[in-house]
Amino acid sequence: MKPPRPGTLARARLLTSPSVAPAVVRELERIAGRPAGQACATGPGAPFVYVGDTLPEALRTPRLLWFHSVNAGTDALLAAGTWPEGALLTRTVGRMGERMAQYTLAWVLAECQSVPEHTAQHARSEWRRLPSEPAAGQTAVVHGTGRTGSAVAALLRACSVRTVGVSRTPRAVPAGFDRVVPAGSAEETAALADARWVVSTLPLTGATEGFFDSARFAAMRGASFINVGRGATVDMAALETALHSGAVRRAVLDVLPDEPATPADRAWRLPRTVVTSHSAGITADEDVVGDFAACWEAVAEGRTPALAVDTGRGY
Amino acid sequence: MKPPRPGTLARARLLTSPSVAPAVVRELERIAGRPAGQACATGPGAPFVYVGDTLPEALRTPRLLWFHSVNAGTDALLAAGTWPEGALLTRTVGRMGERMAQYTLAWVLAECQSVPEHTAQHARSEWRRLPSEPAAGQTAVVHGTGRTGSAVAALLRACSVRTVGVSRTPRAVPAGFDRVVPAGSAEETAALADARWVVSTLPLTGATEGFFDSARFAAMRGASFINVGRGATVDMAALETALHSGAVRRAVLDVLPDEPATPADRAWRLPRTVVTSHSAGITADEDVVGDFAACWEAVAEGRTPALAVDTGRGY
Repeated sequence: MKPPRPGTLARARLLTSPSVAPAVVRELERIAGRPAGQACATGPGAPFVYVGDTLPEALRTPRLLWFHSVNAGTDALLAAGTWPEGALLTRTVGRMGERMAQYTLAWVLAECQSVPEHTAQHARSEWRRLPSEPAAGQTAVVHGTGRTGSAVAALLRACSVRTVGVSRTPRAVPAGFDRVVPAGSAEETAALADARWVVSTLPLTGATEGFFDSARFAAMRGASFINVGRGATVDMAALETALHSGAVRRAVLDVLPDEPATPADRAWRLPRTVVTSHSAGITADEDVVGDFAACWEAVAEGRTPALAVDTGRGY
Repeated sequence: MKPPRPGTLARARLLTSPSVAPAVVRELERIAGRPAGQACATGPGAPFVYVGDTLPEALRTPRLLWFHSVNAGTDALLAAGTWPEGALLTRTVGRMGERMAQYTLAWVLAECQSVPEHTAQHARSEWRRLPSEPAAGQTAVVHGTGRTGSAVAALLRACSVRTVGVSRTPRAVPAGFDRVVPAGSAEETAALADARWVVSTLPLTGATEGFFDSARFAAMRGASFINVGRGATVDMAALETALHSGAVRRAVLDVLPDEPATPADRAWRLPRTVVTSHSAGITADEDVVGDFAACWEAVAEGRTPALAVDTGRGY
């Protein structure tokens, strides 16, 4: 993925989607050194850079030089239409890894320390000692060994949890992991059987849709499953079966295949499950501004930004 | 506190309280190299070592060489009667620091990640994004800088929380703390005003009863208060006032002045409070066995065990 030439960027218009807050727009204008316009149905004549959450069909033209996503996940964006050839796609990650790591650890420790059970006992004015479970010495398997998976693993390891990464693209062991095993290998199956927690940070791509299928869930022996990645990476019927059999002890699902979930969604009625409404990795305004600035600097110097998305692979 | 002479220990009887599990008694017998007897109302004639939770009045005699407490807190034991002169008192700490650290971090992160709110939303099949609060960069003040306080601080710091210790006996900055300030100083008051969390690990002694009084709570500016120490270190009326004024944002109380709390206890009706039934530091059987073994080794060699309690100071 090549960035637009600096000369083209210099004469490009800056457009923002209506969802971008005015305070953020002002910062984007400062970084780009030009006023921002609102995108409208009739596309602009000059080349343009667009910052937003979605890309309207009318703007999927060869004049789009670069789209900066205010979100980390770009699967919906790519699925919504054909990506204009040659257009750069960058995304906002911000402190996503740290946020998802603290979310994951919060739910791991909430389980170990019976936080929901204590809250319920308190509501009943009931004094009853509940034993806690040490997280230390147990094993977490983390699917995805990129920035987010690495941050999740590092924080779990700070609580003396052993961390095994599962990667579809073998690489050196990233920070936070004790070891990394290949997805789909016998080593992954063995790791799933040992795991007290299985945490997914996988993005949604053609290769990860339905990744957590009945075979993977059947390999677990009472692990709790935490999904901070994408809902459609999970075969929900297979998860339901595994929760009923006990292969999966509990589930904490930040994401679902259909969002927002309606009250009729079966996910609300899965046993021993909590759905957290896609709250684990909300990007803050300063994340959007900071990451756009870093991308702008790279593009202005003719480099491909570190936050560029391979629109073919989808992440 | 001098340990009994090794020669006296060699001819002492080993007695255990009825609350000690049979499997633990067998381990204690192995360590002491002699059979254990059950204590009965009529005191034994020979010198004895006693392992248990409470010390019956009939056993508070000069023949008691050494009492090993199966618990970490010894305030109730010391308050229940006169301590026999010269008797060694040791306690079980085990992995108490680690347990209390994971308890504390669980509740800190549960607050940041709205764990109880998500659980309640799930029960209502309600999809609603809730923003999370980063723990990183915020400050926790930890009262007590001994083993437990140090373990609590170290784990909070692994989540990039800044840690300020408060110590009644000034000492070098222990592991886990960014800095330590003296109790009752202007620095403590300033730290309380800055704190997002105030965590107490204080034991109950004459000097700590009612330590968290109206002045201390008034110095807080919206900190959440977590007590894993002892209930009677808190003036509960002062805490109630501070919760109503907002000086204290939330309270998580593992301990109360009166335990077990009856349904009539006002603690159940404090606003934004959870009472967790003295569950943070439950000692496991292996903790009792391991710590008794370490104490036995020290006493047999004529040394004062590291787990000895100063019966005058009370910890």
